[in-house]
Formats: sequence, structure tokens, C-alpha cells
Amino acid sequence: MRRPGVSRRIFTTGAAAAALAPAGLAATAVGVTAGRASGEPRPAEVKTITLYAEEVADGQAGYGLEPGQATIPGPLLEMYEGDTYEIELVNTMDVDVSLHVHGVDYTIDNDGTAHTNSTVPPGESRVYTWTTHAPGVREDGTFIPGSAGYWHYHDHIVGTEHGTGGLQRGLYGPLVVRREGDVLPDRTFTVVFNDMTTNNLQTGPDFEAVLGERVEFVSITHGEFYHTFHLHGHRWADNRTGLLESESDPSRIIDTKICGPAESFGFQVIAGEHVGPGHWMYHCHVQSHSDMGMAGMLIVSDAEGNAPGDPGHHAEPSGNQPEAQGGSSHH
Amino acid sequence: MRRPGVSRRIFTTGAAAAALAPAGLAATAVGVTAGRASGEPRPAEVKTITLYAEEVADGQAGYGLEPGQATIPGPLLEMYEGDTYEIELVNTMDVDVSLHVHGVDYTIDNDGTAHTNSTVPPGESRVYTWTTHAPGVREDGTFIPGSAGYWHYHDHIVGTEHGTGGLQRGLYGPLVVRREGDVLPDRTFTVVFNDMTTNNLQTGPDFEAVLGERVEFVSITHGEFYHTFHLHGHRWADNRTGLLESESDPSRIIDTKICGPAESFGFQVIAGEHVGPGHWMYHCHVQSHSDMGMAGMLIVSDAEGNAPGDPGHHAEPSGNQPEAQGGSSHH
Amino acid sequence: MRRPGVSRRIFTTGAAAAALAPAGLAATAVGVTAGRASGEPRPAEVKTITLYAEEVADGQAGYGLEPGQATIPGPLLEMYEGDTYEIELVNTMDVDVSLHVHGVDYTIDNDGTAHTNSTVPPGESRVYTWTTHAPGVREDGTFIPGSAGYWHYHDHIVGTEHGTGGLQRGLYGPLVVRREGDVLPDRTFTVVFNDMTTNNLQTGPDFEAVLGERVEFVSITHGEFYHTFHLHGHRWADNRTGLLESESDPSRIIDTKICGPAESFGFQVIAGEHVGPGHWMYHCHVQSHSDMGMAGMLIVSDAEGNAPGDPGHHAEPSGNQPEAQGGSSHH
Ligand SMILES: [Cu+2]
Ligand SMILES: [Cu+2]
Ligand SMILES: [Cu+2]
Repeated sequence: MRRPGVSRRIFTTGAAAAALAPAGLAATAVGVTAGRASGEPRPAEVKTITLYAEEVADGQAGYGLEPGQATIPGPLLEMYEGDTYEIELVNTMDVDVSLHVHGVDYTIDNDGTAHTNSTVPPGESRVYTWTTHAPGVREDGTFIPGSAGYWHYHDHIVGTEHGTGGLQRGLYGPLVVRREGDVLPDRTFTVVFNDMTTNNLQTGPDFEAVLGERVEFVSITHGEFYHTFHLHGHRWADNRTGLLESESDPSRIIDTKICGPAESFGFQVIAGEHVGPGHWMYHCHVQSHSDMGMAGMLIVSDAEGNAPGDPGHHAEPSGNQPEAQGGSSHH
Repeated sequence: MRRPGVSRRIFTTGAAAAALAPAGLAATAVGVTAGRASGEPRPAEVKTITLYAEEVADGQAGYGLEPGQATIPGPLLEMYEGDTYEIELVNTMDVDVSLHVHGVDYTIDNDGTAHTNSTVPPGESRVYTWTTHAPGVREDGTFIPGSAGYWHYHDHIVGTEHGTGGLQRGLYGPLVVRREGDVLPDRTFTVVFNDMTTNNLQTGPDFEAVLGERVEFVSITHGEFYHTFHLHGHRWADNRTGLLESESDPSRIIDTKICGPAESFGFQVIAGEHVGPGHWMYHCHVQSHSDMGMAGMLIVSDAEGNAPGDPGHHAEPSGNQPEAQGGSSHH
Repeated sequence: MRRPGVSRRIFTTGAAAAALAPAGLAATAVGVTAGRASGEPRPAEVKTITLYAEEVADGQAGYGLEPGQATIPGPLLEMYEGDTYEIELVNTMDVDVSLHVHGVDYTIDNDGTAHTNSTVPPGESRVYTWTTHAPGVREDGTFIPGSAGYWHYHDHIVGTEHGTGGLQRGLYGPLVVRREGDVLPDRTFTVVFNDMTTNNLQTGPDFEAVLGERVEFVSITHGEFYHTFHLHGHRWADNRTGLLESESDPSRIIDTKICGPAESFGFQVIAGEHVGPGHWMYHCHVQSHSDMGMAGMLIVSDAEGNAPGDPGHHAEPSGNQPEAQGGSSHH
């Protein structure tokens, strides 16, 4: 038995995690394990990365951590409250590009908008600085909410001053800000309902997990339409973490959630808990949207590798589109 | 004065409730009253029912508990956390039909989807098993949410692999999973905004209650559009139960709620509390939707049977459509 | 340092507030400060006002507190739980007009609807009475939610029996019901996304605040469409007050929120907290909506009056439309 609020990941994944780590968090977790005595607060970190805004196939575009590695959605960025990201955005495209972020702190010159002159011309680069903070209490006794949340970043200048073209082409990605003590997932999957696509794909990507793994979904909506994210056989709390925070947490338990453009939420489920292995469908529940392809599978396999309900005929993502980068294993 | 969290129903309705009971819950409540000492946990039940998927008038279809009794929405199914439903679905229609449920537990072969081969051909039948569980705590200290909630069931195969045709025709219904100790309502009314209809009717049905009764609404959305359910003169908490769970429950109090397809929520109000008797309108607050008929009345009468504000000209549901089965009295 | 839950306003604004007070609340606050010893409950008040429904330019219409002073949105009405509003509605227009309110208590003859004969013919007037109540506990142990909330009022008869024409023309306004002890803002701004307008303007109005001021937003949606209200650089709790209610409040922290017609919410932020001064954009995040003008600025100036990021080319609201009445300073 483990203690409440302590991730299994920091005890089991160690050095392997560092190698596969997206954008620094797993390394952080390892560092935490290695570097401080139990109970000591985690020291804030300053992470320095480079994001490349690039064209990919078919007029689409994405952000990537290395040249030529852009994906849609962009890389999963993770931080703990208190951490700072210094992100150099390199614009390899032929139009102005920017980086606008939701949820975290930044001064107005890091807004990524035209009116603040914080966009990046073709061939140039600039650093965006994001900071975060832990919860606190103000002088007047009111509470300061911490930065933790399932957020996202996106372009705010391609096509229009609101980045409508950049979003359509794929310039968006997930940002998860964690609170010290938050339970860490074994796997994180990002699903972006962007206009009538899922991660800019005509068919939703499939995600794989093993029965009992802690699976985290980050759900983001962009574009023109609202969508209702639904997952078969699993459900979550409609609150900050998607996990009930206490026995008396009054949050509604849901398996379907409406989101409009730029809304995001996240949650964790134990793959197959109470229901077993299987090909568990996720989809937008707007009927015409799912009928047109906004659906995929969470494939939960048992220890022998079996996942009943294989559709067989389920279409693979078409090859002439950028590979979906929704999935990220923390192992 | 009654104790917190204890239903008035189990003390006042007794044998009468058993006769009128929709799908077993009132019988359960009676059994609970009769069968165990106060304070003992309620024993889990296995309920066995048959659901008939049938065509009704005008090409519409519904689920019913007896042959020839299909309604839109289908019957109100109720369970307590821990209970099991074994539902034999009999398909009397000329197309494959299925039963897919939200919120509760089922193995992948009870998914009701094409890819899991869990649909029912014409003239055949099969059993779907739904289970539920109470809240708990995992080994790692995180909370397992219980199954309690205002859920729903629907076809997932008629028309398309997402059941778009089945939903349009009326193959949907409410499922309420209660937690032991939950306050029971005197009446439960189901309102399904399904495309541009209410319970597949061109005009929303009227519901009747007596001043002071505890009235429960189950609100479900299906189809293509979002809707905003609004009730005049009454309001509720935007949480799991619709009731504030404690004095410090931070949930927003609302009288209007947006839902997209497949979302559902429920709440209880005391009919006419703070406002008195009357013809209290409920409607979708999307202006064109209410103008086109997505509106009805909660008619709250006083002890003398008076309910001021009778519209007189308010249209009755047209006779050539299946009778709305949104209302269910627990008396 | 001030005590939790105590407004800075009642200590700093005094008599000046009374002069500028919208619809009575600041006067109330002053009265509270002057009239009772610390710790005594605030006495309930009965406020009597007159609202004039009037045509303004271009076929639009609004509510105003004095003849010829109608604005869109109408005046900010504020009450404390327990207070009563007696509002005489004077109809200076040439069609029937009404006043329908969300969230608070009223008998059916104050519903503002056709079927209850509670509308006002041209040239006539009538009194609508709204009451409110504090939270409580029912005999059966369940909680009565108090009336506090970010609500709104609107016409329910112009154009159609649901007031579709009245809403389109501008007959709507904000109502804030406060709970004793709620933190009061320095400034309150109202943003109504009404069809494809913001406060019936083609471009969202700008709002001004000084770094560190407590700024309150009331966000209301009306009409046909859903919108996602987004504010750059600031975020809030998705609960009743928009402020975390305790350290363990599980509410999601958000900076974007979907609302459908007739939904409303409110929140308070400290202008520029963690991010500094600047031209912080707010906008609907449905891409075509922001591109078509549903955007404005929260201009946060530092002590020297500087607010970096001035767009320069940002369009002013056009002069031939009624002045936006979204902003209300409590100073
Ligand atoms: Cu969708
Ligand atoms: Cu609607
Ligand atoms: Cu919008």
C-alpha cells in the first residue's frame, strides 16, 4: 500500500523515464526522488526549451522540440507550480507565428498577440517566459488559486489576430501544471477536438494501456464548434483534477463533457477499473461528429495482451497526415 | 422533523409504491424499510427486467418494460450503488438494436456497440448486465468515485454505428443511480432535449406537482445541438445531486444549464418553495428553440388544487405521437 | 492586513460611493458600515426603484433608472440575501414589455410572461417584486441554497413569448446577489455575449482598472449561440463566487468558459496579479466570433498610468450605438 497522493511513477520508473521524458517533467520527478529527503518541498525549476514552429504535410503546421519533429498536437509540456518555462520559439514558417498560453503567468510582452508585438516573424525567434505559482492567501483573506491545471498553448497570429489559421493548421498543444503531491499518471493521452478533426486527423487516434494503469486524458477543444468528449466504461470527477479530492467532494461524476473552443480539462482513470480489458471507444457525442470520424479507441489489454472487442475494420489514421502526437508514455 | 438524508418516501408510500414502481426502485425502498434494522447497510440487489425495443407511431421507436408499452423516453430505471441490473433486451424491430449505458459498470461485451458484437438482431434478444459500486479508496490513497448519478441509456447501432438513427427515433431513457442515504423524491420528471424536440414531442410535456413536494428532474440531451435547460422560479446546485452537500459546498447555484449531446444531470427542488404555486415554465433558453416549442410547464398546485397562470392556450402534445413518458410519480 | 471576507470598499469609499452607486448597493454598504456594530447581522432592506424600458438608437432598446437614460446592458442591480426589490417598470415603448429575472424569488404574477399576464402594455407601468433568502436547512435536513449569485434580468415578451425580440434589441441586464461577508469588488464589468454582439456592440467595449484593484466580471450569454468567454492573463474558480472558498475547494481553475443562452457567471480577479499591467484581451474564443469583433480589452494600468500593449488601432465602439453600460465603478 502506498501513501495517499504519492505517485507510483516516481518510485518505479527512474532512469528510464528520464530518457523518454517529454519536456522535462519526468526528469524532474526523478530529480525529486533523488535530490531531497521525504517531506521537503520540491525546489522550483527553470526549464529552458526550444519549440520549432514548422510546416508539416498538407499545409498543416505544428510545434516540435527538435527541428523536423513537429507534431499535432505539439509536445506535452509539464511543470509543477512554482516552475518557470523559458521557451525559445523558432519560426521556420513563412508567416508570423506566436505562442499564447492559457492558465499560467506571463507579462504582457509574452502574450503572443499582435497588439502586444509579441509574435515572431519568419526566420526569427524569441523567448517566451511562463511562470507559475502555488496556492496562497491574500492580505484580505481571499485565496489565490494555484496554477495547477490542464491547460494548453496555441498560436495567436496565423491567419487572423486570433490565430484562427494557426489553430486550423495544428499549432496547438497541451500544458499540464501539477501541484506538489498530485498523483502522476502512467500514461498521458491528449485529445484535441479541433473543428471537425481529432488532433487534426479525420479519424481519432487509438491509445493503448494495460489493465490497471493510471491513464490521464487531456481534452482540449479548438475552432468553431462545441464537442462533447465521451469515454466508454470509464468516468471522472468534473473538478480540477478529475479525481475526487475528498470523501465529501460534491463534484458531479461524468463520462461526457461539453467543451467550447479553448476550453480544456483533464482527468485520470484506472484503465479497465470495474469493467476489465477491451476496446473502449472514446468519441465526440455530437451524433454527426462521431458519425464523421471523431472517434477512436482506448485499448485496454490484460496481462496476456488481450483486449476484446477489436473492431478489425477500424480505420488507421491516414498516412499522409502528421502522426498524432496525442499519446505520451511516462514509462 | 425528519433526519437528514432520510427520504420521506420510504416512510409514507409503502405498498402503494410497489404497485406503481418504475423498474424496481420503489419496491426496493419498501423492501429496505421492511427488511432491515435502522443503521444496517442496505443489501445489494440483482434486478432482472426485460426491455422491449419497439416501433411506435410515425416511425418512432422506444423501449418499454412490457410488449406494446414502449415509451419515449424509455422507463425510468433506478438502482442503488452496489445493485446489478440484468436486462434482457428483446428486439421486436426490423433492424439491429442495442442498449448502451452511461455511468455504470459493464464488461466490454455489454457495450452495445457494433465493434464489440453486442447488438441484437431483429427478432432476437440478449441480456445486458450493468453493475454499480459504492465510493471507495484505492491502494494508492486516491478516491474511487461511486456510481451514483443521473445517467441514461440509449441505442448505439440504429442508423449508424453511433446510434444516430436510434436516438432520433426515440431509443433512449433515464437511469438514476442513488447512494444509500440519498434523499428520495416524491416525483421524478425526465426532460430529454433531443434535436429540436422535447422527449421527441414538438411541444414540451407539462408536469404536475403539489406545493411542497420534492420534485426531481432528470435532464438529458441527445442529437446534434446543445440546449440550455431553464426552469422558472426554482434553482439548484450544479453538482452531483443538485443539492448542496454541506454548508461549505462551493457549487454554483443555477437555474439554467448548457448541455451537449449525451450529457445529463439531475436535481431536486421543493415545488414552489419561496415562490408559491403557479404554472412555472421550463424551456430551452436558446431563443429559437423555445420559440419553436421546446417549452412546457411545471404546474405546482396548492392544497386546494389552484395553480395560477394557466396559459389556457398552451398546446397539448399532439395525439399522433407517443405519449411522453417523462413523468413518473413515486406515490 | 484585513480580515477574511471583509470588503475593502466599505472601509475606503464612504460617502462618495453613495453618490455614484448603481441601484442601491453601495448605499447599502455605507449604511451597513454606519448603522451597526461589528458582528451584528445586516438588516434586510427593501429597495424601491423605477426601471424605464425605452427605445434607443437604431431600433435597439434598453432599461434605465431614469427617463432617457436607458443603457445596454441595463443597470447593474445588486442586493444582499434577504433584501427585496420593488421595481416599477415603466413601458415607454410601443409594444408590450416585461421584466423576467433569474435566480431570485418571486410569485408567479411577477414572472414577466404572457401566460401569467405579467407583462406591461405600452404607456403603462407595474411593480415587480423580487425577494431573496439566505441559505438554510429544511426540516428533512437538506440544505436550502441561498439566493446569492451572478444572475440577470431580461424582457420575456417582445417579439415572441420568450422575449426573443426584446433580447435582440437589448432589454437585458445584470443582477448580483451577494451573501453577507462576500468580498466586494472595486469595479464591476458586465459582458453580455448576445448573438454576435458584445453588449449589443459590434466590438467589445474596453474596461479600465488599476493594478491591484479587485475587478469583478459578470458574464451573461443571450440569443442563439454558445460562446466561450476568455480573459488573458487572469483566471478564476468555476464555482459560485469565482473565488476558491477554502484551501480544499476542488473547483476547476479556468480562464475560458462555455455558456449557452441565459447562462451567467461571475468572478473576481486582482487586476494584473502575477502578470503586471497591460492591455489584457478578453474575447469569445469561438474563432469566427473573435475574428468578427467579439473582443475587447481589460486595460490594467500601473500607478504611473502605464498599460503596455496599447493596440493603437483598436476600434472604438461606434458612435451610433448606445453607450456600453458594462462598466460600473464602485468608487
Ligand atoms: Cu463534436
Ligand atoms: Cu435548445
Ligand atoms: Cu462566441
